[in-house]
Amino acid sequence: MSAGIGFYKGHGTENDFVVIPDLDASIELDPAAVARICDRRAGVGADGVLRVIPSDDPAARWYMDYRNADGSVAEMCGNGIRVFARFLVEAGLARPGEFTVGTRGGIRIVHVPVSGGDINAGMGSHEVRDVPGLRVTAGDLSWEAVSVSMGNPHAVVFVDDLDDAGSLDEAPSVTPSDAFPDGVNVEFVVTRGRRHIAMRVHERGSGETRSCGTGACAAAVAAAIRLEGTAAAGTWRVDVPGGRLAVALNADGTVELAGPAVLVAQGTLRSGLISNERRKSGSS
Amino acid sequence: MSAGIGFYKGHGTENDFVVIPDLDASIELDPAAVARICDRRAGVGADGVLRVIPSDDPAARWYMDYRNADGSVAEMCGNGIRVFARFLVEAGLARPGEFTVGTRGGIRIVHVPVSGGDINAGMGSHEVRDVPGLRVTAGDLSWEAVSVSMGNPHAVVFVDDLDDAGSLDEAPSVTPSDAFPDGVNVEFVVTRGRRHIAMRVHERGSGETRSCGTGACAAAVAAAIRLEGTAAAGTWRVDVPGGRLAVALNADGTVELAGPAVLVAQGTLRSGLISNERRKSGSS
Repeated sequence: MSAGIGFYKGHGTENDFVVIPDLDASIELDPAAVARICDRRAGVGADGVLRVIPSDDPAARWYMDYRNADGSVAEMCGNGIRVFARFLVEAGLARPGEFTVGTRGGIRIVHVPVSGGDINAGMGSHEVRDVPGLRVTAGDLSWEAVSVSMGNPHAVVFVDDLDDAGSLDEAPSVTPSDAFPDGVNVEFVVTRGRRHIAMRVHERGSGETRSCGTGACAAAVAAAIRLEGTAAAGTWRVDVPGGRLAVALNADGTVELAGPAVLVAQGTLRSGLISNERRKSGSS
Repeated sequence: MSAGIGFYKGHGTENDFVVIPDLDASIELDPAAVARICDRRAGVGADGVLRVIPSDDPAARWYMDYRNADGSVAEMCGNGIRVFARFLVEAGLARPGEFTVGTRGGIRIVHVPVSGGDINAGMGSHEVRDVPGLRVTAGDLSWEAVSVSMGNPHAVVFVDDLDDAGSLDEAPSVTPSDAFPDGVNVEFVVTRGRRHIAMRVHERGSGETRSCGTGACAAAVAAAIRLEGTAAAGTWRVDVPGGRLAVALNADGTVELAGPAVLVAQGTLRSGLISNERRKSGSS
């Protein structure tokens, strides 16, 4: 069989990733290769790739080179970093407990319990922006929205029923149209109980997904402000279609995200998925 | 890392499969395990599983235990058997050239070129049934249909444009309603040139797919009868959304399907995907 490079597949609340250990940073992974790997029929299939490379920053040993399924880069991924941390511990590259991970969004602190179980990750600070007249429309309904940045932009609306958002086959309309020139993720939120919400999310560029880590954080921030008048304290349970997350709101404005992270398979990718040249030279 | 069982992932015209070599037929693969493996977010993800076990029939060495993504069994899969044959050759379990494979639909002859390239598989005989008044409706349009059995049932219609079938988010309506009590696969076909057609397919239980091997055969049979008055000779090129297939119609009524088959990754599945017990005992 042909040579290949090692990979793992895993997911956090059904947001799934191909992890590629590249411990000497020697793998050239161009956007086309990422797209081939993430193709759910012709490749392995995933929402993104997490390449594991050494960190340049002495504050972290490993760096998460995160790529979206289309090959583009992204700063951070709250579900991805938990899968990344699970991999580091299972592969013996980090010891259970608290450690740091480098990301394009900066150094993040993660905690992997010795016993297994949910992994906690620092998500940086939230920022609530005042956007006068901000509204989201989906299907025949329209709602006032709250703008929350978690490094990436979110518009959060509170709905009576998660079905009110309709099929979400098309992106919800967000107005004023110049509020988010680079697009926005939209969270539809209902209250389930004390500090317990459920949400659906439409991610810019991806459509509706099973889970969005930064979206869960933004939803908890908006819910805390709406229901408690402040996002400076408390841990919120956030149900997403792919599972359950916990969002801790700290007094200093930082946010932490906890939830499951599971590795389900490991192996090698055929070289044809990585290299254009080799791919073109044969059918297998 | 936890123990697991070996797997390969591959596809034929983007109809994708997890191949599980089980050379001593010792793996218990219940429908729930198949569904977990085929889950595209929480598992590896595939349209089906091809378990490789020894054949009971002396006419074949290996048997293709094919399962649909939902865990149900199926008799044959024209794209799956090519991926199965590619695996056998790459793993050294069969020599390139012509050999036999056992399936629930009977013994099939496959041919794997020594040079790589497209794999040919015998698909058994076609049968054209006369169903008076048979029609397919999709969206606002309706067409006369031809009923072709390839072991499984197909209704083939000829359209002016493949877009005429609409989104196919919902199953096309087939009348008379009692024509196919177990459901039917529907092919929408256009002519591209001499013995060259293109199609879209709606598979019962799966929705629109990137490719359907028996559907390509049924479409070629219906096209040959419509355009040449007989399905007893000729090789037809059939473009499907996931690639290109070739269907050979033989004088004795048998049909052969040729097309690509590619393995893209190999590795081990974590035991949690296979066993309910272990899955429930831990998160990783």
